[in-house]
Amino acid sequence: MSESTIRPFFWRATRLFGEKTVVSRTTDGEHRYSYESFGHRVQKLAGALSALGISDGDRVGTFGWNHHRHFEAYYGIPLMGAQIHTINVQLSDDRVAHIVEDASDDLLLVDPGEPLATIERLWEDLDSPDQVVVMAEEVPETELPAVGYETLVAEAEPVSEWPELNEDQPAGMCYTSGTTGLPKGVEYTHRMVYDHSMMVTTPAALGIDESDVVLSVVPMFHVNSWEFPYAATMAGARQVHPGASPSAAELVDLIGSEGVTLTAGVPTVWIDVLDELDEHGGDLSSLERIVVGGSAAPEEVTRRYKDEYDVTVEHAWGMTETMSIGAVSRPKASMAAASREERLAKRAKQGLLSPGLEMKVVDEDGDPLPWDGESAGELLVRGPTVIEEYHNRPEANETDFESAADGGWLHTGDIANIDDDGYIEIVDRVKDVIKSGGEWISSIELENQLMAHQDVTEAAVVAAPHERWGERPLGFVVPQAGADPDATRLRESLVGTVPKWWLPDEIRISETIPKTATGKFDKQSIRERLDQPDLPHAPGRQRWPIISRTLQWPMRTWSPGRSGRISMGK
Amino acid sequence: MSESTIRPFFWRATRLFGEKTVVSRTTDGEHRYSYESFGHRVQKLAGALSALGISDGDRVGTFGWNHHRHFEAYYGIPLMGAQIHTINVQLSDDRVAHIVEDASDDLLLVDPGEPLATIERLWEDLDSPDQVVVMAEEVPETELPAVGYETLVAEAEPVSEWPELNEDQPAGMCYTSGTTGLPKGVEYTHRMVYDHSMMVTTPAALGIDESDVVLSVVPMFHVNSWEFPYAATMAGARQVHPGASPSAAELVDLIGSEGVTLTAGVPTVWIDVLDELDEHGGDLSSLERIVVGGSAAPEEVTRRYKDEYDVTVEHAWGMTETMSIGAVSRPKASMAAASREERLAKRAKQGLLSPGLEMKVVDEDGDPLPWDGESAGELLVRGPTVIEEYHNRPEANETDFESAADGGWLHTGDIANIDDDGYIEIVDRVKDVIKSGGEWISSIELENQLMAHQDVTEAAVVAAPHERWGERPLGFVVPQAGADPDATRLRESLVGTVPKWWLPDEIRISETIPKTATGKFDKQSIRERLDQPDLPHAPGRQRWPIISRTLQWPMRTWSPGRSGRISMGK
Repeated sequence: MSESTIRPFFWRATRLFGEKTVVSRTTDGEHRYSYESFGHRVQKLAGALSALGISDGDRVGTFGWNHHRHFEAYYGIPLMGAQIHTINVQLSDDRVAHIVEDASDDLLLVDPGEPLATIERLWEDLDSPDQVVVMAEEVPETELPAVGYETLVAEAEPVSEWPELNEDQPAGMCYTSGTTGLPKGVEYTHRMVYDHSMMVTTPAALGIDESDVVLSVVPMFHVNSWEFPYAATMAGARQVHPGASPSAAELVDLIGSEGVTLTAGVPTVWIDVLDELDEHGGDLSSLERIVVGGSAAPEEVTRRYKDEYDVTVEHAWGMTETMSIGAVSRPKASMAAASREERLAKRAKQGLLSPGLEMKVVDEDGDPLPWDGESAGELLVRGPTVIEEYHNRPEANETDFESAADGGWLHTGDIANIDDDGYIEIVDRVKDVIKSGGEWISSIELENQLMAHQDVTEAAVVAAPHERWGERPLGFVVPQAGADPDATRLRESLVGTVPKWWLPDEIRISETIPKTATGKFDKQSIRERLDQPDLPHAPGRQRWPIISRTLQWPMRTWSPGRSGRISMGK
Repeated sequence: MSESTIRPFFWRATRLFGEKTVVSRTTDGEHRYSYESFGHRVQKLAGALSALGISDGDRVGTFGWNHHRHFEAYYGIPLMGAQIHTINVQLSDDRVAHIVEDASDDLLLVDPGEPLATIERLWEDLDSPDQVVVMAEEVPETELPAVGYETLVAEAEPVSEWPELNEDQPAGMCYTSGTTGLPKGVEYTHRMVYDHSMMVTTPAALGIDESDVVLSVVPMFHVNSWEFPYAATMAGARQVHPGASPSAAELVDLIGSEGVTLTAGVPTVWIDVLDELDEHGGDLSSLERIVVGGSAAPEEVTRRYKDEYDVTVEHAWGMTETMSIGAVSRPKASMAAASREERLAKRAKQGLLSPGLEMKVVDEDGDPLPWDGESAGELLVRGPTVIEEYHNRPEANETDFESAADGGWLHTGDIANIDDDGYIEIVDRVKDVIKSGGEWISSIELENQLMAHQDVTEAAVVAAPHERWGERPLGFVVPQAGADPDATRLRESLVGTVPKWWLPDEIRISETIPKTATGKFDKQSIRERLDQPDLPHAPGRQRWPIISRTLQWPMRTWSPGRSGRISMGK
């Protein structure tokens, strides 16, 4: 048996499906080539990196969106023995600086425009990288020591034979979104990418076949774009990369013109796409499935895609620590005769654990809870695609991972119940749960109820310290455009929907709720400013992955989170 | 990351799909239970094995057909840390004795009837096992130190917590069919079973989903029943085990009554099933796919299943050394608009290599040949699911495997060409190819042409030593029932279909052609008796897996082979 590396994925796409196209929107316009041409360029990129002094074990940071050059980096960097470290372009400057320094990136591949401007601002503070490669046709004017990707590749000597790699050597690196502190580095070995791509391709997960046309809306800087660039290549599927901050109109256009069958992303994207379709129409006839993570899709969105476009919306759950997808929700075959409502109720959960993993839900003493759809505790998972440590974070490694002797479980930090069919339902985050008088209050449930109110577009509920009860819930709501909700009445509207002692002691109307760069409520920064009149704005520059207009749909199931988890909520 | 073992497969089926049924035909009648009950019995079997003194690293032989007890052994033995060694019940006595001794099995699980009788005959010559467990409701009268499976399980203390296993520890063992010498032992680690099950479940291979109902016709003693018991369990699919030597009528009945969607086996089975349907009818409406290996299915069979039953016949290729399936043949999505003939021509090949593997075809100097659909050479493969050595066979390890430094390739012993779409076509075996005057003659091509003759049911062509040319082809044919072909005219009928210098120097009419226990032409024993008037009968007791009546279809593409390879032929 040979080592499990990404080499056979590259081999399979370029040799067995060499004629298939990879389509990208780039800052230079649309780009289209075959897997065969992709292969040649990957070989040249690897040669170019060698010429720049990159070698086995080095770390190359990337700072860009989804396009063919970034896709080439996904292969060229790990195949020559180095590690691709994908950095979220929507993070605040200080986070980016922290991450580049923490990872000691030896080189940076950067998109032109805003990403390049960020690196320019930070350059003097960055120790490790001594050069920047601009992923564009031409290098814009810059004071950085920069070289153009195309110049580099054009002049490079292609690598004709890949080096024999050790499967345990790191292939990739991502950082968690850091809602509970500084982002934590997560490294993926070649073997983990191999294992997760194989798993995510099975029908129990995404079931990617070569007949699929895959649109990866999830950014390449976010948990390997949920593994699409690796799994779809392995499968030999056509791939579509939508470029920087694609608009809903661009996505609709790409789906129609390229015949996309499978895509994935956070719910806001697909809500915006529905709005776009309402306003301007569009052709979704090729599309079969949308995989949704990051938070749960409102049931109405799921219904409308099915009824109006015959598209199935499927929830997925996962974390940076599980290499993205670790569960997918669809009704079991045994539910074929169940009512539509029953089937939708299952779809609204986070789903069935993917093959190769194991899970349990435990109480505060670590004892397993029954699978009754009610008993909620922390979700623990394990398997070959679950990491066993963070980079440079001994203290988090102590708390988040159990030793092999204790079963090797990862503490996900998610509070979940499991029903008797085995479906996971995430009900809160461990760090967000409110403990009042010794009992748990679900912040997510309160938020869901508040967001179900017609005057509310977003709601976040956090724990405020309380002398007698320990903690009490405190709510923040953003009104719908044009609405002017009264805080007291909003509070009263919760009566009857949640236990009376759950009612927030106070609800504050706010212009905005701070979010992380991955679009989740930043509860840490909310809690830090409870004594100030206004909430801070989001540290990230924009919502991810496209700027959503005001949400049109009652977000009954929005939920916040830490560390790049890709779905939760009710 | 935790170790890659079969534990999560067991966990997934029993916890997420606990209500799904597993149906078996056994010597005691039909048996039906849920994955949950299966799980309890596996825990008890493991406890019982411990009580019998089996522990970590021990090897437990099984000698039986496809039923729930054998299925339980597939899990109970490896989960408690021991190794399941599945032995072909259709081998000759001396082969069985060799295999049990070579593997030093510590215990044997044996089916009642013929398998038990075989072990009784051999018992005095067997050193290692000191007890036999009879896989039946009750133990038949026997002089062996035997205990009943049901007694054992009923009295056992269930294992409540599986031991932490090392992924590199052996989980299973099979022997090659040994057409070119003594059968060779092949060991599968837990990790290899994990990896191959995951791969075989992807849509590129079999695409097994939980909605499938899987009928494993391939015997459990043959390369893990092509991984169905592991992959289908992982997927959570319903499983149907057809028991000992199922007849075509029983298979048709099971497909109809259990709603089977996916099944697999050698072509003769599916030819017999067509005959059965012609004679007695039957319900194949649930069936979607038949995966065929061991040899190629005649094109007419593929056509009839599609036209008359809307069932797709798919070729697979693999070997014991690749854990069964390593390639599957179906037209690419890009051939959607191709003619039916073009699509069938692709289906007739051995297919596209499965994800995670790599291959090349090389000439006698080891240099890669072009992918032109013509240049034939030895097929080399590598990947995490390809073994890197045989058990106890240092000399074969020298010749069949290349070192990691040389790429870690397995020499498959298959002569193949690869077309420019990447489809493999097996044209001969290295050991069967005839080298005449320095040029290769394809024994398979000659056999195909002979079997295309209306008076011929089977044909084998081997190399006979020749003073001037080195080797010359010599043919053996078995006439169709009632036909009386003339050898000279048969030889003449080949003129125009193959190069003239390929014409066999002699064709002999024979009553039978010896076959191995896996139903392949035993060319070694043919070559050993070229100077005798008649060919020997097959050493195995019967054709596998069900006794085929005289083949009703022109076997245009039959092919022989070594080592449990599951498909070849043109």
